[in-house]
Amino acid sequence: MLENDHTLNDLTLKANDGSFKTNDRFLKALAHQKLDRTPIWIMRQAGRYLPEYRELRNKVKDFLTLCKTPELATRVTLQPVQRFPLDAAIVFSDILTIPDALGLGLHFVENEGPQFRRPLRTAKDIEQLPKIDPETELRYVMDTIRMTKHELSTRLPLIGFAGSPWTLATYMVEGKGSKQFNEIKRLLYCEPALLHQLLSHLTQATIDYLNAQIAAGVDALMIFDTWGGLLSQTHYFSYSLNYMQKIIQALLLKQPHKKIPIILFTKNGGLHLDEMAETGCDAIGLDWLADLQHARQRVGHRVALQGNLDPATLYANQPTIRSEVANVLRAYGKGSGHIFNLGHGIPPDVHPDKVGFLIEAIHELSPAYHSL
Amino acid sequence: MLENDHTLNDLTLKANDGSFKTNDRFLKALAHQKLDRTPIWIMRQAGRYLPEYRELRNKVKDFLTLCKTPELATRVTLQPVQRFPLDAAIVFSDILTIPDALGLGLHFVENEGPQFRRPLRTAKDIEQLPKIDPETELRYVMDTIRMTKHELSTRLPLIGFAGSPWTLATYMVEGKGSKQFNEIKRLLYCEPALLHQLLSHLTQATIDYLNAQIAAGVDALMIFDTWGGLLSQTHYFSYSLNYMQKIIQALLLKQPHKKIPIILFTKNGGLHLDEMAETGCDAIGLDWLADLQHARQRVGHRVALQGNLDPATLYANQPTIRSEVANVLRAYGKGSGHIFNLGHGIPPDVHPDKVGFLIEAIHELSPAYHSL
Repeated sequence: MLENDHTLNDLTLKANDGSFKTNDRFLKALAHQKLDRTPIWIMRQAGRYLPEYRELRNKVKDFLTLCKTPELATRVTLQPVQRFPLDAAIVFSDILTIPDALGLGLHFVENEGPQFRRPLRTAKDIEQLPKIDPETELRYVMDTIRMTKHELSTRLPLIGFAGSPWTLATYMVEGKGSKQFNEIKRLLYCEPALLHQLLSHLTQATIDYLNAQIAAGVDALMIFDTWGGLLSQTHYFSYSLNYMQKIIQALLLKQPHKKIPIILFTKNGGLHLDEMAETGCDAIGLDWLADLQHARQRVGHRVALQGNLDPATLYANQPTIRSEVANVLRAYGKGSGHIFNLGHGIPPDVHPDKVGFLIEAIHELSPAYHSL
Repeated sequence: MLENDHTLNDLTLKANDGSFKTNDRFLKALAHQKLDRTPIWIMRQAGRYLPEYRELRNKVKDFLTLCKTPELATRVTLQPVQRFPLDAAIVFSDILTIPDALGLGLHFVENEGPQFRRPLRTAKDIEQLPKIDPETELRYVMDTIRMTKHELSTRLPLIGFAGSPWTLATYMVEGKGSKQFNEIKRLLYCEPALLHQLLSHLTQATIDYLNAQIAAGVDALMIFDTWGGLLSQTHYFSYSLNYMQKIIQALLLKQPHKKIPIILFTKNGGLHLDEMAETGCDAIGLDWLADLQHARQRVGHRVALQGNLDPATLYANQPTIRSEVANVLRAYGKGSGHIFNLGHGIPPDVHPDKVGFLIEAIHELSPAYHSL
């Protein structure tokens, strides 16, 4: 099937200066180290807006086959960094790999998003969840990481990731994305102990999963808390942030010397920045609702900040994109500690040239914020 | 059709002490005046969770017929205040009456929410929007208000309302509710002047509409900004809050002496409380994501606060409901200026007894916060 395609060894990374030397801007920004310009990567940068992605996607049965075939997942991971001078790659995978490995039967319905064939419906369903070994049930992710790292060598950092326990639990209990989230809310209000049991199980699975990703070679980790932002502050702390903090602390314990930085992203979490910064994470991802200037004032001395252009900006013309990029850069202001990104994943109907222009605008406008 | 039902004159309002005397707790709380206990009303208190509502709804063709038949809309408005000792009634209507009056062809698809037969698709669609006269095209709302006021007399205050211009524009451009809101975002980023033209038109229509509601007899007004919370802070100010402020200022100009209080509610607006409090509104409605204690510290000296129990709390058992009610009351703390409500509309599958219990809990627990 792949005979006529380029082999993986054709990989040509357009580093910023045309050479193939190491680009460590992303990692330096996470550590607040001095830089020449602001680094950028884009959530869902490997995805449907890219014609080369759609071409590969059309050759396989479904989205999950792409994720679960390391050679293909590696090719998809590399597509955006081959096309654009991005400052990081992110493993092509899905946040729901753990529930899938737990036997819930993940599948993707066109235009409806992820669904589970066997959502959690009873206490017994939760109590009987198995323990998973990432190098067995999720080996395809580790193989993708190993293959991608081999291809990237030291030229670009690779980001691994997982969904937050609360976000995984939400999908596992609802069975799919939801508008009202009544099922998980019922569980929260009616059987909180059972929900905590589920979250603890998912927390341990995620710790094992992310440690395996570190062992396989990722250079940074991101935890995606897609649904933490629908909880009240008190519930966010006890049902989402608490478990993300356990994960971060467990990862730090395991690797006290060579520290892999961790980015925490709660969609719609702008009210909780102080508490997020206290978890031990290295950076907070911001959606476009958060004010970057205000966020930096509050937590910028403790963590780096990633974000936060409204993805819909990429529907606009070049002058508007440019001026919105300028607004984001100005909001963060001078100095290191900012990683440019969208506030959410890139929409599938954005023209890829807009991404090229976005990156150009950052290359052009951001150095002014890094000179003395 | 209504022959066998009770006539409207059967109305028996269970005032708190069993008598029919005036209950002005809601208006007093809006004015920070001393009270015996915290008042409560519930967003969507007249609705599907009530069996008497479903009975009436089943007798008519559709939801809009209920809204557009003043005698029926009056009956529905009164149903919750006849069943429960609530402290305010709210006109049974919909936030999309204005776009409907503008000719977009509002209809409701079961389980999918509101849709328009003729959404705005071109600049010409926007430029040709007619001017509406509320006492003609929206006379059914005014008649409902007049009939309801006649029935309520002075026993309970009646709340009128409108959607925010941004929220109306969102539905009018998307054609229905949306997950990504790509159409309105495209308009915002690609043709901002055209969007401002639409918002200005809707602002004037809303001013006329709310002035007509005041003339018809409402005792307070609420502006529902359902979708303001999906905008970045800068865009929220210029595309949503700015127009709500124009409405509030225009209403205040028209009635400098007898001031009808105005409640502003932006769903997911917890990051913008300071600016909301500066609009001239009398109260801010909070969803359950906002921290009530923090909100009071920031803006409680300038405006009253309404909210903010998570509606899903009503799925829980009585002890949990009681403890969550206690949390909300404790978060606001001592003194007047708080109107208890949910953080969003009541879900249709909540048992009405839960509402009864919720109100009992507030009657029981809130007096402690009002004694000296």
